[in-house]
Amino acid sequence: MEAHLTILGTGSALPTFQNSPSGQILDLCDKSFLIDCGEGVQLTMRQMNLKTSRLYSIFISHLHGDHCFGLMGLISTLDMMGRTQPLHIYAHPDLEKLMRPQMDYHLKDIRYEVVFHAINPRRKAVIFSDRTVTVETIPLKHRVPTCGFLFYEHHRRFNSLTREFYYETRKRYAYCSDTQYKESIIPQIEGVDTLFHEATYTEQDAFRCKKTMHSTARQAATIALKANAKLLIIGHYSSRVSNHSIYLQEAQEVFPNTLLGVEREIYQLP
Amino acid sequence: MEAHLTILGTGSALPTFQNSPSGQILDLCDKSFLIDCGEGVQLTMRQMNLKTSRLYSIFISHLHGDHCFGLMGLISTLDMMGRTQPLHIYAHPDLEKLMRPQMDYHLKDIRYEVVFHAINPRRKAVIFSDRTVTVETIPLKHRVPTCGFLFYEHHRRFNSLTREFYYETRKRYAYCSDTQYKESIIPQIEGVDTLFHEATYTEQDAFRCKKTMHSTARQAATIALKANAKLLIIGHYSSRVSNHSIYLQEAQEVFPNTLLGVEREIYQLP
Repeated sequence: MEAHLTILGTGSALPTFQNSPSGQILDLCDKSFLIDCGEGVQLTMRQMNLKTSRLYSIFISHLHGDHCFGLMGLISTLDMMGRTQPLHIYAHPDLEKLMRPQMDYHLKDIRYEVVFHAINPRRKAVIFSDRTVTVETIPLKHRVPTCGFLFYEHHRRFNSLTREFYYETRKRYAYCSDTQYKESIIPQIEGVDTLFHEATYTEQDAFRCKKTMHSTARQAATIALKANAKLLIIGHYSSRVSNHSIYLQEAQEVFPNTLLGVEREIYQLP
Repeated sequence: MEAHLTILGTGSALPTFQNSPSGQILDLCDKSFLIDCGEGVQLTMRQMNLKTSRLYSIFISHLHGDHCFGLMGLISTLDMMGRTQPLHIYAHPDLEKLMRPQMDYHLKDIRYEVVFHAINPRRKAVIFSDRTVTVETIPLKHRVPTCGFLFYEHHRRFNSLTREFYYETRKRYAYCSDTQYKESIIPQIEGVDTLFHEATYTEQDAFRCKKTMHSTARQAATIALKANAKLLIIGHYSSRVSNHSIYLQEAQEVFPNTLLGVEREIYQLP
């Protein structure tokens, strides 16, 4: 199956008529990875009738509520749907401290294991790797410790000249949300196939970026341009902006191959 | 403004294409009371553009996730919307124990007070009363301590013959979810204007009621009939049943004045 991205929520902290809190599913090498899990993520998954049996692990960028309040509901629903395989959650260690008491109370009879993997969002590190996919943290700059995630697909190949095995990297997907404009991430995501970068504000509200530590659409596009990304998808829209075409226009002025992240849409990755 | 009920979520534990977890808003005497707050309740409120400034207090029937996992997101959103008045939450005392650590972490700069009122779901008691509205618990029978809520509107009147003040009761609304069929609630809700009673199952799945401690549509209607309710609204539908008209048909055979609870619909109360 081709790699694809399903956007479940693309709002910022305050939900609106058209935007729910953050969440997206990356399907890569026949595995599903959930990235962030704001409130309602599992409801949208159920409404879209998405298969959850291939959901392998969850990556949480940071512990603001709009990125993690949907976890308890999701974990509960997976149990009701008969999951038996372990679920791996990669997040700041505070998440486990906060969730364990809730799980002990609400999900004490759960029939599968939830394994928390503590990550340090401040350091670039490989946090997951199997036969076909590796995931690295991308340190970001936000009001609380936050990291993005770089997913890359790799395949073991044999070089008949040197008679050695080597790894061929194929698709790469980078998720960068939430963050201020941060050029130091560029070397890590250089040449990435698809970059999802938050674009909370339009230029009109650019003055809000400093205090809230978010980016504009133009800044997201500038990162994509400087990193030679092939495709940029933007999201994490402010509740102040109802006409999202302004985001798209501002980003495309800098980086034409930009798509608007739209909830419940599925994007084939280049 | 006339009393009305807004149904936000009318599913049971497992969300479906058409059903989200429990939540409804009762508007009575110019106050809004939220009853139960499953995941997504605040998202639906925002999508429906409901006024939250009149949201006075929240009543939680029991601590299953589909009745309370939406609280953190709602409390957070009310803060972002600038709420300053206290928010009163009436629930089993375990709710505060579970939520305080989360609130201390995620909402440490919150600008309004959240006041938890511990209730004992096993006893019938008045838990709220002001100049115009009183709320009583209705002890129910479920897998964890659970109560319904009886709301009644009252107005102070003067009897010119006896030269005394008295209270005239007007509209009464009873919320009974989740519960097994329980006839002992009937005296308390006798003659109620509107009864919301859970109807998780149809007759075909009636055998599930005992283990899960839920009711069928027919049982909900039987309670409405025996209590001489004026109107019955049913909800809390099982994910097993996609055609809700079966619930309605089974209930109306016993109690004709039954309405299906439908998400995002607003019901004028008789």
